[in-house]
Amino acid sequence: MIPTLEWTSDGVRFIDQTKLPLEETYVLATNYQQVADVIVTMVVRGAPAIGVSAAMGVALGAKSTTALTTEEFTPEFDQICTLLAATRPTAVNLFWAIDRMKAIFTQLSSSGATLHDIQQSLLAEALKMYDQDIADCKAIGAHGAHLMPDVGGVLTHCNAGALATCGYGTALGVIRGAVEQGKQIHVFADETRPFLQGARLTAWELMADNIPTTVLCDNMAAVLMRQGRIQAVVVGADRIAANGDAANKIGTYSVAILAREHGIPFYIAAPWSTIDRATATGDLIPIEERASIEVTHHGGKQLTPHGVGICNPAFDVTPAKYITAIITERGILRAPYSQSLQVMELVTP
Amino acid sequence: MIPTLEWTSDGVRFIDQTKLPLEETYVLATNYQQVADVIVTMVVRGAPAIGVSAAMGVALGAKSTTALTTEEFTPEFDQICTLLAATRPTAVNLFWAIDRMKAIFTQLSSSGATLHDIQQSLLAEALKMYDQDIADCKAIGAHGAHLMPDVGGVLTHCNAGALATCGYGTALGVIRGAVEQGKQIHVFADETRPFLQGARLTAWELMADNIPTTVLCDNMAAVLMRQGRIQAVVVGADRIAANGDAANKIGTYSVAILAREHGIPFYIAAPWSTIDRATATGDLIPIEERASIEVTHHGGKQLTPHGVGICNPAFDVTPAKYITAIITERGILRAPYSQSLQVMELVTP
Repeated sequence: MIPTLEWTSDGVRFIDQTKLPLEETYVLATNYQQVADVIVTMVVRGAPAIGVSAAMGVALGAKSTTALTTEEFTPEFDQICTLLAATRPTAVNLFWAIDRMKAIFTQLSSSGATLHDIQQSLLAEALKMYDQDIADCKAIGAHGAHLMPDVGGVLTHCNAGALATCGYGTALGVIRGAVEQGKQIHVFADETRPFLQGARLTAWELMADNIPTTVLCDNMAAVLMRQGRIQAVVVGADRIAANGDAANKIGTYSVAILAREHGIPFYIAAPWSTIDRATATGDLIPIEERASIEVTHHGGKQLTPHGVGICNPAFDVTPAKYITAIITERGILRAPYSQSLQVMELVTP
Repeated sequence: MIPTLEWTSDGVRFIDQTKLPLEETYVLATNYQQVADVIVTMVVRGAPAIGVSAAMGVALGAKSTTALTTEEFTPEFDQICTLLAATRPTAVNLFWAIDRMKAIFTQLSSSGATLHDIQQSLLAEALKMYDQDIADCKAIGAHGAHLMPDVGGVLTHCNAGALATCGYGTALGVIRGAVEQGKQIHVFADETRPFLQGARLTAWELMADNIPTTVLCDNMAAVLMRQGRIQAVVVGADRIAANGDAANKIGTYSVAILAREHGIPFYIAAPWSTIDRATATGDLIPIEERASIEVTHHGGKQLTPHGVGICNPAFDVTPAKYITAIITERGILRAPYSQSLQVMELVTP
């Protein structure tokens, strides 16, 4: 089991994803500010993992307070939630998780619960979300496995694996599910510039599971498709709008267009918490622009001339029309997504 | 004038493109084996520059021979040509240039010319090819400039600039031509993994010319297209088949599909020497697979886990159907290319 993040008696422990694959080191966040920092600096990343990290950050903030009463703690609780919500803008799971923690707090504080009870309940909620995330990934894997080829190549972009969740993964959960069914999958992992989540993280966790993996530069996927080496594409998502448009790591939109051009199915795998029915279309999803240095430098070495202009959007939006299906723990959604999302909302999770 | 390569009394001098943009250093090849090495290691790269480099390598080999007679030199000449031709397989300009040198040699040796005369003529031919290359680039620029927007963004991939030629460039020649006509072009340069010719070389030479340039990761181009920030795409080519299919740096095929999907014209700019009418279609163009280390490492730092599979094709083929026009020094070709190439062949260069 890959230890993406874990609640411990000393704080929240994260595998440092900025150091993988060559160093397996851990960061212990002992207060909520450190949890926020770990999210901002991408020690932990991936929409589901970010959501649970934030929930644990809230629980840690509540546990560490010097306040003596619920009333005294209330403004600090707001501060904790505000700081954690400001870490990254695109993954909706972050806001979803914090909202769940807020709902617990509001319910208990309005019913006169003690601060101790609130602390316990917030932690219990975060741990429940952690367990639920793994269970959801396994359900996504079981549903999606049927969509994978019996024998063939599957392309993925970025890391939507165990490292992007509390374990098992979403897109890589689908691949793990297929492999568990005895399917012979060869994974082609886009390296995923600029942060190289594919080259570093997807490759690392699939090799640990002995799933055959080839890393390619992002610009090589089209050739492999044309050569008939890719039978399906499966990626994660950071936010899915009400019409099925899906935000995911920068480059996903390209992959989706290329897949359609080559007649290859393109799947999104994500937990229900990634669906944001309050956002009508992908155009309304806020896209984080990250620092130029991620593009201009690698490993401390500068790649570009001094002063050149740089683009670095961290995500893009794939319009629903390119998405063959959305795989969730509740089942598989097909277009038109505005309708299938509405119907699936009624399915008991 | 960017000194891509230059004949000197001591040998052939190359700017070291593996060290740009941070170090401007030079390599002097004092024998033909060193010229071959410079091509293999990509100190010099770009189809037109490779062609002229090889011609200069042949001239240098002839100049440095210890043979006393044409007859004695003949097997060595074959050896020189064979070594230089084996440096890289995809760019047809390499073979075209060597064939031109062979033709000079055959003509002179069969007419009983002295070794000294042959040496002089081979050098004269290489220098003529050098001058012709710059003139061709300027003609390509003048033709292609009309296809560029008056004001707008132009995407390019890899480096088809002064550094890929003897000067001025093919795709960047078109951009320079447009800027010289007073057009306001903002260049978007794909960084071009794995060798980063865009981030390193295109950015460097356009900044030197004060042409506004933004570097993006290859996987970001589709988003810029969708945002309406790209009005045209122009790239070079390493070999153009008789049907108009064009081999160019890996990733070009993706860019072409993305351009078509967004209704953006996609242009190839290349000298006539890049056209290989002996090769019927792009499927027959040999594609060089380069060492994994270009993908797994950067600046001496390893990016991927030990032992993971790696893809590293150096080129891909863009089918003619995605190419809006091919810009050559003879004029602009439109589909059907098998016909327009045949007609343009008759145009006096």
